[in-house]
Amino acid sequence: MIRLESDYTQGAVPEIIARLTETNMEMTPGYGEDEYCFSAAERIKKECDMPTADVHFLVGGTQTNLLFISSVLRPHQGVMCAHTGHINAHETGAVEATGHKVLALGSKDGTLTAKQVKETLDAHYADTTHEHIVQPAMVYVSFPTENGTLYSKAQLTELSELCRERDIPLYLDGARLGYGLMSEKNDLTMADIARLCDAFYIGGTKVGALFGEALVITNDKYKKDFRYIEKQKGAMLAKGRLLGLQFDTLFTDGLYYKISTHAVCLAKKIRDAFEKKNIPLYFDSPTNQQFPCLTDEQMKKLSEDFAFSYWCKAGDRHAVRFCTSWATRSEDVERLIEEIRSL
Amino acid sequence: MIRLESDYTQGAVPEIIARLTETNMEMTPGYGEDEYCFSAAERIKKECDMPTADVHFLVGGTQTNLLFISSVLRPHQGVMCAHTGHINAHETGAVEATGHKVLALGSKDGTLTAKQVKETLDAHYADTTHEHIVQPAMVYVSFPTENGTLYSKAQLTELSELCRERDIPLYLDGARLGYGLMSEKNDLTMADIARLCDAFYIGGTKVGALFGEALVITNDKYKKDFRYIEKQKGAMLAKGRLLGLQFDTLFTDGLYYKISTHAVCLAKKIRDAFEKKNIPLYFDSPTNQQFPCLTDEQMKKLSEDFAFSYWCKAGDRHAVRFCTSWATRSEDVERLIEEIRSL
Amino acid sequence: MIRLESDYTQGAVPEIIARLTETNMEMTPGYGEDEYCFSAAERIKKECDMPTADVHFLVGGTQTNLLFISSVLRPHQGVMCAHTGHINAHETGAVEATGHKVLALGSKDGTLTAKQVKETLDAHYADTTHEHIVQPAMVYVSFPTENGTLYSKAQLTELSELCRERDIPLYLDGARLGYGLMSEKNDLTMADIARLCDAFYIGGTKVGALFGEALVITNDKYKKDFRYIEKQKGAMLAKGRLLGLQFDTLFTDGLYYKISTHAVCLAKKIRDAFEKKNIPLYFDSPTNQQFPCLTDEQMKKLSEDFAFSYWCKAGDRHAVRFCTSWATRSEDVERLIEEIRSL
Amino acid sequence: MIRLESDYTQGAVPEIIARLTETNMEMTPGYGEDEYCFSAAERIKKECDMPTADVHFLVGGTQTNLLFISSVLRPHQGVMCAHTGHINAHETGAVEATGHKVLALGSKDGTLTAKQVKETLDAHYADTTHEHIVQPAMVYVSFPTENGTLYSKAQLTELSELCRERDIPLYLDGARLGYGLMSEKNDLTMADIARLCDAFYIGGTKVGALFGEALVITNDKYKKDFRYIEKQKGAMLAKGRLLGLQFDTLFTDGLYYKISTHAVCLAKKIRDAFEKKNIPLYFDSPTNQQFPCLTDEQMKKLSEDFAFSYWCKAGDRHAVRFCTSWATRSEDVERLIEEIRSL
Repeated sequence: MIRLESDYTQGAVPEIIARLTETNMEMTPGYGEDEYCFSAAERIKKECDMPTADVHFLVGGTQTNLLFISSVLRPHQGVMCAHTGHINAHETGAVEATGHKVLALGSKDGTLTAKQVKETLDAHYADTTHEHIVQPAMVYVSFPTENGTLYSKAQLTELSELCRERDIPLYLDGARLGYGLMSEKNDLTMADIARLCDAFYIGGTKVGALFGEALVITNDKYKKDFRYIEKQKGAMLAKGRLLGLQFDTLFTDGLYYKISTHAVCLAKKIRDAFEKKNIPLYFDSPTNQQFPCLTDEQMKKLSEDFAFSYWCKAGDRHAVRFCTSWATRSEDVERLIEEIRSL
Repeated sequence: MIRLESDYTQGAVPEIIARLTETNMEMTPGYGEDEYCFSAAERIKKECDMPTADVHFLVGGTQTNLLFISSVLRPHQGVMCAHTGHINAHETGAVEATGHKVLALGSKDGTLTAKQVKETLDAHYADTTHEHIVQPAMVYVSFPTENGTLYSKAQLTELSELCRERDIPLYLDGARLGYGLMSEKNDLTMADIARLCDAFYIGGTKVGALFGEALVITNDKYKKDFRYIEKQKGAMLAKGRLLGLQFDTLFTDGLYYKISTHAVCLAKKIRDAFEKKNIPLYFDSPTNQQFPCLTDEQMKKLSEDFAFSYWCKAGDRHAVRFCTSWATRSEDVERLIEEIRSL
Repeated sequence: MIRLESDYTQGAVPEIIARLTETNMEMTPGYGEDEYCFSAAERIKKECDMPTADVHFLVGGTQTNLLFISSVLRPHQGVMCAHTGHINAHETGAVEATGHKVLALGSKDGTLTAKQVKETLDAHYADTTHEHIVQPAMVYVSFPTENGTLYSKAQLTELSELCRERDIPLYLDGARLGYGLMSEKNDLTMADIARLCDAFYIGGTKVGALFGEALVITNDKYKKDFRYIEKQKGAMLAKGRLLGLQFDTLFTDGLYYKISTHAVCLAKKIRDAFEKKNIPLYFDSPTNQQFPCLTDEQMKKLSEDFAFSYWCKAGDRHAVRFCTSWATRSEDVERLIEEIRSL
Repeated sequence: MIRLESDYTQGAVPEIIARLTETNMEMTPGYGEDEYCFSAAERIKKECDMPTADVHFLVGGTQTNLLFISSVLRPHQGVMCAHTGHINAHETGAVEATGHKVLALGSKDGTLTAKQVKETLDAHYADTTHEHIVQPAMVYVSFPTENGTLYSKAQLTELSELCRERDIPLYLDGARLGYGLMSEKNDLTMADIARLCDAFYIGGTKVGALFGEALVITNDKYKKDFRYIEKQKGAMLAKGRLLGLQFDTLFTDGLYYKISTHAVCLAKKIRDAFEKKNIPLYFDSPTNQQFPCLTDEQMKKLSEDFAFSYWCKAGDRHAVRFCTSWATRSEDVERLIEEIRSL
């Protein structure tokens, strides 16, 4: 079975495994206060062109989201996101469990627009009973989105300007950041994101690491005491160096970008194969996730050798998801393409 | 610098590193639903002599504690523990952050007695205003305790009987479980603990793993829907197999016990060296943590080559902590013993 | 200015004021353990034809909702309601602040159907990743709804049967219960509601009392320790007798029903006046709230002497709300009707 | 039975009952935005000599405490208080239910000293693992304390200076404020308290009102968006005017002080009677609560006609509590004194 149902079916890039092995018996202080974490943070700050940023290494995405959001919001505040946003749809109410409502705004492709956010804010404050309603006080976006789509530099700039004007933080979930940055449709750099957002995270779990996400807090206002929050939510890894070492490796010699490019190229090939076959795509994704709409028969056929995810009904077809990753083998994609051709 | 300040300064047993390397490019389903997790759970259930137990693999101890406790308690309920209990003293209010008061009871050596728990329960229900007071509704013990001490089989049995009589769960934090089980003073087996407690966890982070704890829920009443709680608190590892594989390794051929014995024996040597030197021990610990009370001068001298933890003032001396672990080298302990002799 | 913008602009029925005055210097135990509370609870249980029900007197509606919901749900569970439900729209995230997601389902008139609930439950458990999604675990309905509409006995029975089949509680918010029960379109009695729901509350604040809601818990499963929850959320009134005395008065000689009938009759007159004038009604409400769609000019004219609430845009008109209550004077309604006629 | 077990066994001062009756059918806007609330707030700000203070009217003390504390603290922060503090001992974990640990410091008489707070803060920040410990970030004091004792102006000033130096809020629970202010041992005015604290509340429930507490926020930093928090916690009274009207009455012509003096004088008489009889007092209280230590026999005898509260064992005696209030009748106290004499 070739597993393309998600981008976390395999371990880590060999460079990480090698360094884990190599450094295994070294003695270091715990809780992220070791040389590997310091070095990785330096590399990331450089990548962000922002020497003042704070970098925290965490284990997973849901954890990172709930930590940052609950660290920043006051009890009566909520976070706006697309209704498809991971925090709204797939984190078992992790944000609500910290006391905050997720304010889901409708979205066709998974992105939010500055206009939507502005209207939500304006409507809130125009309502004479606004104290009876959760205050919209943060914007959460994902890049790429859960649907594989991207924000352009213009779109993210517009959101950022609005958020700064209204003094609310803009937070970007980069679980698949590499696959967004390396898309041929993308015009944003990591430094752009660091500059435009108040905080964001660089996904490792889905992009080359065994596990791990690097939270980058760029706005001084949201930096204070974050390590207490980490510990309180059970998110401070005892052997923090495991995270530092992984990100240090990923941000050495552009490895993070190289492995991301690999995944995006393979995804493009899969996409092309479906298009050639006139199989419609549910979302117009230029990244590592592809969402073809298959007939019952096509679905059955492809399931024989490939694992993929069911997404939703799409008329009389079924939208499904194929993911590539840093680890996907070209030959497996070739086999899939042949399979698609022969449908 | 020889680091003996904690038992998580190094990586994992070589067997784990080898299997991680070996299995790195395998494709498995995510979130703990893979063969490694299934196999590890089977081994643990066998170790516990309890085929019906539920086993969940989590990343860290604070996380495991907050998950289980918040999964079980209703909003008005609190958890009793020794005032030195990790949940009371060193988890940044993780339990309170889920809404529950930690009810700290005084303890000299880090253990709770059935008598204390009984008196707390009786006093609560005798108070005519008990509805104005947090309801004591769970017992948390650690084995070994934060002070390195142990419960005897008789003591744990007494606690267990009381808890069952009053219908409140008994939960055991086994962050250093191996070091407790392999102590020469110990008369409990893992199966005893499984039988006497409603849930407990087997520590991996401090006992041979890179990271990871195995939560064992033995009482059916507390099993339902635990995986939802895991996801909600950001504790469900995407590549769950990393945990499964580690515990599978630790519970193959008694590795967990072997490496624990190693640490406990070295700790005993350190203890003997301090005793021979007439340096008092702050706690009477038969496990891998030792707490000598050093003079200023002794502390200064030992700090030159060894890292250890400051514990507290002890009269005109200072109680400090030396930890051994599965990874501690005999030669390093020999050097320390020489150093102690020459004080 | 004649205030018809809400049903809580005035004090209490004179009978309550008289008894408050009369009993003012009596000495009673606190926290709801007095004769007035006991007597009121007895009257309500009789009204519900359910001697085993638990009755708790609370101060307000948001408070009652958040208490009952958080008392019953486990951390990963959410409560389904119409998107217009008070807990979703007008309680500043009170339910989320206790850690639970409100699962808002679309609704045209403010009611939920058994079909919707069934589909939500079925979709949840059919999803292979359901542990990543908040578990739908309670149904919240309001009677009358926030739009003035009602559930028929058949509809509520269907919801109740579904909930029992799936073992999830059905909770009814009766902030305006009297105005629902006394509507000429209603076919439910309080005893029906008690029998069909697992808990509900009888609104006092909007129906004759200075303040106060009577929560009736009918299912044994949800009764335990509720008074602890009351105290914890700051909802246990020190001089609880103030609540007991008010409900005791309201449920003496059918006063609650009489005053409710008064309000509903006046609302019917207002409704008829708008209909005669061919002014469309935004919701088809047979209770004390009426929602005419006014032109700019009509709105301006009526604002001169009457206070009413703005609801929403309705095409090129504006939906607004007029409320009657137990306290509304017939002559004020007559004046309003004349005003409407002359529009 | 003459009830002296608490200071909330009776209704309200007759002036309040009269105004409630008088204004009953007036129509006002809801949620505290009416003329009575505005007027009461003005009177209180004048009393505090602080025109910029924010005044919020709430229903009860536990509610007021949990609202202010949770409004101000970030998730990893806790509130220091005497171990006897109401928030620690008698609010069913209300503060913990909002996610924050109560950091209880030992106290003999119910007061905290600046020295204790300073040591707690210093110890916290001196600990190299302080991120693993709840951050002490607020000081809660009660005036009078739960034991009837008082802070002097010098003591409160010292606490205030320390808190300002360390930038943490000082919050004062004034459930019995009047009884403290009118004690002959007191040297603080309400304006002093307003000046020295960042927020405090003026108790109404125990001092002349049917119910109600007036929260005064004096530090601009803690004022923002408080009404959202009120609504979210179910604490915003629909007919807010009921609170405004009560406080408006209490702060007209010094009524609050007059009725407080009455209670304190009667308590003094009770105290003198016990002292004359050589019955020891458990706490040295100059306010409306008195804590004699009775023998079994004395307790039995006094219970025949008087209700009082059991406090705790005191050697072979029993500490009990007698409370006077604004409503206590002189003749009842005379009868009690005779009873004491004849013991």
